[in-house]
Amino acid sequence: MRLIENWFSERYSDNLQLSFRVQDQLLSVKTDYQRIDLFNTYDFGKLLSIDGTVQLTEKDEYIYHEMITMVPYYCTAKSDSALIIGGGDGGAAKRLIDLGIKRIVNVEIDQNVVEISRKYFPELADSFNNKNVELIIGDGIKYVKDTDESFDLIIIDSTDPVGPAEGLFNKSFYENARARLSDDGIIVTQSGSPYYQPEALKMATKGMLDVFSNVRTYIAFIPTYPSGLWSFTMASKSEIMQRKEKVIPGRYFNEDVLKGSFYLPEFVKNIIKSI
Amino acid sequence: MRLIENWFSERYSDNLQLSFRVQDQLLSVKTDYQRIDLFNTYDFGKLLSIDGTVQLTEKDEYIYHEMITMVPYYCTAKSDSALIIGGGDGGAAKRLIDLGIKRIVNVEIDQNVVEISRKYFPELADSFNNKNVELIIGDGIKYVKDTDESFDLIIIDSTDPVGPAEGLFNKSFYENARARLSDDGIIVTQSGSPYYQPEALKMATKGMLDVFSNVRTYIAFIPTYPSGLWSFTMASKSEIMQRKEKVIPGRYFNEDVLKGSFYLPEFVKNIIKSI
Repeated sequence: MRLIENWFSERYSDNLQLSFRVQDQLLSVKTDYQRIDLFNTYDFGKLLSIDGTVQLTEKDEYIYHEMITMVPYYCTAKSDSALIIGGGDGGAAKRLIDLGIKRIVNVEIDQNVVEISRKYFPELADSFNNKNVELIIGDGIKYVKDTDESFDLIIIDSTDPVGPAEGLFNKSFYENARARLSDDGIIVTQSGSPYYQPEALKMATKGMLDVFSNVRTYIAFIPTYPSGLWSFTMASKSEIMQRKEKVIPGRYFNEDVLKGSFYLPEFVKNIIKSI
Repeated sequence: MRLIENWFSERYSDNLQLSFRVQDQLLSVKTDYQRIDLFNTYDFGKLLSIDGTVQLTEKDEYIYHEMITMVPYYCTAKSDSALIIGGGDGGAAKRLIDLGIKRIVNVEIDQNVVEISRKYFPELADSFNNKNVELIIGDGIKYVKDTDESFDLIIIDSTDPVGPAEGLFNKSFYENARARLSDDGIIVTQSGSPYYQPEALKMATKGMLDVFSNVRTYIAFIPTYPSGLWSFTMASKSEIMQRKEKVIPGRYFNEDVLKGSFYLPEFVKNIIKSI
């Protein structure tokens, strides 16, 4: 908990921080996996922090959740089934339900995230009550290794590649995930702020390139995440391209974003080239 | 000056701020037009603030300056001459020199900005010593009204539309600027953070639409500006499109960015539609 004089601050480095004024702190709990804090902020509504980093806020969660689901969705011709690893808040599952996906397995390692979301973000966690969603509390790495099921979409909605999520950014995990992916299926992971965390983008890209011949990076603007610029990395056994024609916009995502988010600034290209 | 315990904070609202740890404050001066502060930060090098808002940092100034010059440059077929209004740090002029523009008039209202930049950002302000650059200390609004000269590019590199820069965002200014623009010329202005300052984007768009039939918005990611997402609005008497083929990348800008920066998120489109 970093609540000083009613401000919650996320440190981007020792020398830089974004601070939210809060009405009150609703929760602070140390689980087996991580520290979870929940604040009621003035500008962004309820804010969930894990290990001191903003995971979601009521006001801007739509950007992250639309971008981690809708971009890969429109790049698959068939999307009957999806596996979410992480995503214990229910925000990714919610968008997949809205997209009409019939079979959604959501594997979250920390039951506390689900319980907190059920209580404080019911409009997101309500997705776990949907008949198309199977919620599993468990280790996503192990699940991917053990299951026999195939998926059209595999969405890694994890924390950053330090701590419990580290194993979700390497070759052996991506190998097991590949075996669970249908022929034109897509796997996508959040891969951090290219500006402040180029290592996360490098790890995801390198891990996927070790296993897949088609890997693409896309970006989105998220005001409450470090630097405001976020990256996602996706991979497929097939060429990655828009495969569904009729694009229905969200609040951030639209047909232009589907195209434009793949156009990368030079410094982001250089990070990828440096691998 | 908002230096508390060696942190400089820019307030995005009463409830949100980005804070930079600083080694020292180099300057704090109240001019006829604004308050100027200069800090030596740990993460972004020297940082220039005007009226409490970050104008430029050594480390990321290239993004803003590339985007306000290179995007319009590649959308003009002929770019022999350019007028910069504001831009007293010299960063925009520097890029225009690099792009080979032969006649650059730079009108800055506050001599202090130029002097501070000459001393603390010499690699930017050095552009004022270039034989192709004419620096005028004066009121850009009046200059545009009085001059007989025509320009291929008019670049409004101003502060936000409160205070001295307000008159740079309205119809009467854009009318005078239009009269000074060559047939295929382009006028561009920074138009704020669409997320936190939708009014700035609305003002620029509305003002330009009152005078020009071709108006386009583009966006860039700037880590030290509010929300990380920044907008630019440009207008022309002719259709706006890429008119130079061979694109030479900068550190942020490249041919993909030239295309992708016009693809707007849905919430940005909705701001523009709401005018």
